[in-house]
Amino acid sequence: MTDPLGPGAVIGILGGGQLGRMLAVAAGRLGLRAHVYDPAPAPPAGDLCHALTTAAWEDHDALRRFAGAVDVITYEFENIPAATLDLLESLRPVRPGRRALEVSQDRLTEKRFLQDLGLATAPFAPIDSMDDLEAALARIGTPAILKTRRLGYDGKGQARISAAADAPVALQAMAGAPAILEGFVRFEREISVIAARGLAGAVQAYDPGENLHEGGILRRTTLPAAISPATRTEAALLAGRILTALDYVGVMGVELFVTPAGPVVNEIAPRVHNSGHWTQQGCTVDQFEQHIRAVAGWPLGDPRRHADVEMENLIGDDMDRVAQIITEPGAALHLYGKTETRPGRKMGHVNRIRT
Amino acid sequence: MTDPLGPGAVIGILGGGQLGRMLAVAAGRLGLRAHVYDPAPAPPAGDLCHALTTAAWEDHDALRRFAGAVDVITYEFENIPAATLDLLESLRPVRPGRRALEVSQDRLTEKRFLQDLGLATAPFAPIDSMDDLEAALARIGTPAILKTRRLGYDGKGQARISAAADAPVALQAMAGAPAILEGFVRFEREISVIAARGLAGAVQAYDPGENLHEGGILRRTTLPAAISPATRTEAALLAGRILTALDYVGVMGVELFVTPAGPVVNEIAPRVHNSGHWTQQGCTVDQFEQHIRAVAGWPLGDPRRHADVEMENLIGDDMDRVAQIITEPGAALHLYGKTETRPGRKMGHVNRIRT
Repeated sequence: MTDPLGPGAVIGILGGGQLGRMLAVAAGRLGLRAHVYDPAPAPPAGDLCHALTTAAWEDHDALRRFAGAVDVITYEFENIPAATLDLLESLRPVRPGRRALEVSQDRLTEKRFLQDLGLATAPFAPIDSMDDLEAALARIGTPAILKTRRLGYDGKGQARISAAADAPVALQAMAGAPAILEGFVRFEREISVIAARGLAGAVQAYDPGENLHEGGILRRTTLPAAISPATRTEAALLAGRILTALDYVGVMGVELFVTPAGPVVNEIAPRVHNSGHWTQQGCTVDQFEQHIRAVAGWPLGDPRRHADVEMENLIGDDMDRVAQIITEPGAALHLYGKTETRPGRKMGHVNRIRT
Repeated sequence: MTDPLGPGAVIGILGGGQLGRMLAVAAGRLGLRAHVYDPAPAPPAGDLCHALTTAAWEDHDALRRFAGAVDVITYEFENIPAATLDLLESLRPVRPGRRALEVSQDRLTEKRFLQDLGLATAPFAPIDSMDDLEAALARIGTPAILKTRRLGYDGKGQARISAAADAPVALQAMAGAPAILEGFVRFEREISVIAARGLAGAVQAYDPGENLHEGGILRRTTLPAAISPATRTEAALLAGRILTALDYVGVMGVELFVTPAGPVVNEIAPRVHNSGHWTQQGCTVDQFEQHIRAVAGWPLGDPRRHADVEMENLIGDDMDRVAQIITEPGAALHLYGKTETRPGRKMGHVNRIRT
């Protein structure tokens, strides 16, 4: 492979959900092609890509054919099985690389990585038994939250512990999986930084957005966030340190709690991020194009924000409001092509330009 | 078919060039699917659509299958054979409708239609013989331009007549095809209005852009155009009259000459238009989404312009400048995925936000 990739080169994308779909469109806009790999038939990205492979993560023949058909491989989600990665890495560059996935696939590894970088995190402790949990609760206190170390997202695989008496039920909810106890952080607001690092090491960050979660799912991201210039700068620098430490290539979402003592890292996601969707209407180069640029070995684009934006996720029955949303001036609708509406399912989002 | 079309409905698009490609992406963003029909293998839209049919315009079996797989049919170019349209119209709604195609497929019909609406055009005369041409030149004068009535674009099928002596060679260049002689219009500038009409008759127009052509091919479109508020209003109203007279559904490009005596209509294109590409960075709802909204029976989007923009076409060797363009702050690059560069071939465009 020669960097940068030119017209007609193929970006392999693991995962064909809405993030893979928007990555595929971004690749297209740059004259590149997207080949999507997803175990599910007819994933959202299937409608907007050059080629689609429908096969299991364990199907090594399919993975080999996929790798042979693409120039570089990236992904829209972090929970790719290790054996799948081992095989793909032996055949094509995988960007972002292995270290970012190792760190973000395991909440404990992630917390320790952040701590080693000198960054603030919530207090935490590894939990493999009731003894561990009791000791950790004695140190961290309540309320706290018990999470599986791996495979959690959007509030799944989590149990809140309001008082010590909740501990046994919470541990049972982990179903024997290795877990981590996290203390709560008293924060003023939650923000996220969408940052990117290019193949040659350049780093760029978008202006931090302010996030509002409901039921563990992102509801809104608002730009600008109500934070001081110092916090804005600190957030960008901190994200840059994370990316550089991981020798990262691509876009990362870094969720931060803003506290009186400074920013605390909540979690990192080694991929384009829901809280970065506002960049589609707020910037010339959005997070999807930025990620493709990095992965394809292109220079990073200008991340400057040219408008105030509010991004609202359309979840489940929010689809009932689409008929009204499409009549709103300044509202840019993005639907993911999902025909089946389910509670909690992300169906699309709206970016509202605020003037 | 029920209007408006909902998630998963399929828009059939005749023609898979860059316009079809950007229409397919716009359909996807609204949760709709695009099925592209093109006689050429691997057209630009093929990388970004739900389904692709590769078959000739005369292949009635393929056309029937295509119509059976889509909910509504639209097109990216006006020169669709009449028999193809006859068949498709009998099976599915075709939007914009037949009348718009009849008018725009034939320069003479178009000029007469505009004249009947009371709109100013260049002086013109139908030419079927040397006698016709001599008589027309005596009336219209030189310089003038002889064009085939049908199938011309980007300066093809045209011959300039600088003096009466050029007439025989110009007529020969028509190769016996029915032709039209057009006088030159002395104009201050050329602008175009991208206007849309919804299924229920609502009309919206984008701010007119100012066009610069080179060698018969659009080079740049600049927003705002250097025109008076009165001209801006007149241009929008005039476009609205054309769309309403045609009972039009979709986006139309209306090219105008601005003259001291008022706007003169140069030509109309019953489709999204190269001079409307600036809307991708200048508006919340761009011309491609606006067209899909109209064709899918949705309300039209807000056409307000939120930035000054210059669109530059990337033609042939302009591709050599891509490496520089991607480092320019505020420049949004759009490549069409064409791997073979040829002189005069439209390879992509750049929208530059001007602040």
